[in-house]
Amino acid sequence: MKIAGDLGDTWKFVNIKDGYQLQNTVKIAIIGYGNVGRGVMKSLKRNPDIELVCILSRSPARVKNEVGLTVPVFAVDDLDELKKADVAILCSGSKDDLPVQGPFYAKYINTVDSYDNHSNALSYFKAMDESAREAGTVSCVSIGWDPGTFSLQRVLNNAIIPGSKTYGFYGTGPKGGLSMGHSDAIRRIAGVQDARQYTHAIAQVIESVCSGENPELKPGDMHWRECFVVLKKGADAGAIEQEIKSMKGYFAPYKTVVHFVSQEELDVKVSGFPHDGLVIGSGTTGEGNLALVEYRNIWESNPEATANILVAHARAANRLANENRRGAFTILDIPPAYLSAHSREELISEFL
Amino acid sequence: MKIAGDLGDTWKFVNIKDGYQLQNTVKIAIIGYGNVGRGVMKSLKRNPDIELVCILSRSPARVKNEVGLTVPVFAVDDLDELKKADVAILCSGSKDDLPVQGPFYAKYINTVDSYDNHSNALSYFKAMDESAREAGTVSCVSIGWDPGTFSLQRVLNNAIIPGSKTYGFYGTGPKGGLSMGHSDAIRRIAGVQDARQYTHAIAQVIESVCSGENPELKPGDMHWRECFVVLKKGADAGAIEQEIKSMKGYFAPYKTVVHFVSQEELDVKVSGFPHDGLVIGSGTTGEGNLALVEYRNIWESNPEATANILVAHARAANRLANENRRGAFTILDIPPAYLSAHSREELISEFL
Repeated sequence: MKIAGDLGDTWKFVNIKDGYQLQNTVKIAIIGYGNVGRGVMKSLKRNPDIELVCILSRSPARVKNEVGLTVPVFAVDDLDELKKADVAILCSGSKDDLPVQGPFYAKYINTVDSYDNHSNALSYFKAMDESAREAGTVSCVSIGWDPGTFSLQRVLNNAIIPGSKTYGFYGTGPKGGLSMGHSDAIRRIAGVQDARQYTHAIAQVIESVCSGENPELKPGDMHWRECFVVLKKGADAGAIEQEIKSMKGYFAPYKTVVHFVSQEELDVKVSGFPHDGLVIGSGTTGEGNLALVEYRNIWESNPEATANILVAHARAANRLANENRRGAFTILDIPPAYLSAHSREELISEFL
Repeated sequence: MKIAGDLGDTWKFVNIKDGYQLQNTVKIAIIGYGNVGRGVMKSLKRNPDIELVCILSRSPARVKNEVGLTVPVFAVDDLDELKKADVAILCSGSKDDLPVQGPFYAKYINTVDSYDNHSNALSYFKAMDESAREAGTVSCVSIGWDPGTFSLQRVLNNAIIPGSKTYGFYGTGPKGGLSMGHSDAIRRIAGVQDARQYTHAIAQVIESVCSGENPELKPGDMHWRECFVVLKKGADAGAIEQEIKSMKGYFAPYKTVVHFVSQEELDVKVSGFPHDGLVIGSGTTGEGNLALVEYRNIWESNPEATANILVAHARAANRLANENRRGAFTILDIPPAYLSAHSREELISEFL
């Protein structure tokens, strides 16, 4: 039975072994094949309504070698192949790639990306919105867990607890969270062979926030940074430690601990890409009744988490496009049901 | 600058002292004036874009006495007064009132309600959808924290961690959470003068879930129930304790502890309406990397929390109506930005 015209006639669900599948699958292309692109590949097994039609890469030979013959791999400018997909998932970096690639690909196909530079998010949104509106495509931008699902929680907290304060903590577990940006920053220092940086939230500060104390906090009050650094032969450990600790915008406001380790120790100690985060909204309702909302994500693989969230939004992008919507959308602009492969009836019966 | 046509031309924001306000406020009516209705009244101070035009009540004399002359109070069938509002917030009970009142009022005005009987949610949705579509109104149904924001998290978890399991715990703090339904059930027993029931989550089970063990759990494994009961003179404590503990669907599957107290003790010990809950989604990404999402709400006043969430959805209902949408919507069908009084640019710059 059809209960609401919003679902559209093209969305018919069929029973499969472990749940439901769309009769019409969403055809995706992956553009850029690094850790996030690999995560998208792995997520396909768990999303039977999503079908990969091709990968576009700047190094197609390398990618072909990695993925084998099962997936067609093309160069980044092979637009004819790209257009066989419904949605392109842009898996390149936010710093140099997406600001150019995003508006370019939005001219040809619906896109989803995880642009994560918070301070440039609005100008990126506008560029994508303009490109997508002109082309009549849909672009879901800044999709991941932060920005992404965490943004959703911040807006929700602000709407349902007006006047509340929102706090963000990262690396709340014992291992902390791996920061790729900070690891890269250390690796750029002369004399450094390799490095990884783990961010740690300060547990007592989280306790203070969760008790409803609403403290005023600066970034350096909430986190400390732990660096594992492999030196090149003959490098000056003391000078490098000093350079790390005084790096503005990265380490200067934080308590920073530097461990010098061998490459072997680094490779064993700090494998994988774990990360986690916690958003806390703290305020009151009525005449001063405490209201507290906590949202925590723990990911053993940060890039796979981002990939999973991108894939769910590829489903949403395709649905928005089928409704003849156009332009850029953040996670805030999309009905949450659109991320799901379940029908509205299933969502109400089983999830509401 | 206008960045997206979706916002509509009627949505213009003006600067006010502590933030932003819509030039065009949303005019609401409260129907039913109990704890949730009072919560809606209190929330108005914190939502300057929401304006109360009237209260409709089955006992207008009682309500007039309580709210004074500042707010017009009318009988429940005063539809001419009701129609001066944009959105009616239905604050009556789910058991007997909403199944009748909801479809009735949806014929005349956009509505928001917190219908919370999970097992009948789909049939209530359909009745509201039919009534609202016929009338050309918008009805936001089953809006609160559970169903409501918790439903949103369950769908989000399922979409971004396909194959994950979702767990729900209630009363995770030391005091537990007050269950109105279970308190009422005890009060209906002959010989009981008054009662309150606190639900407690079992901490070790939460720990097991948070460690990623993905246990199979029955309801009785996750919670225990604590009852504070005031007896009428001459009532048989042992028989009543037995009747409580064996009550099917309410207490039978749970470890249940019954304390007999005086009315004075009850009034002092268990004031207010605290409740809290925790949704946990637990699964993996890729080839077995742990993925865990926790969402916790702690409310010192449960009815004020529900009221706040209803008010945010009155904003959304008005916006959907201004877009000429019609029919019933759950929280899953509404772009999260619609709950906020902030503009799209503000949301991207400050919350994304």
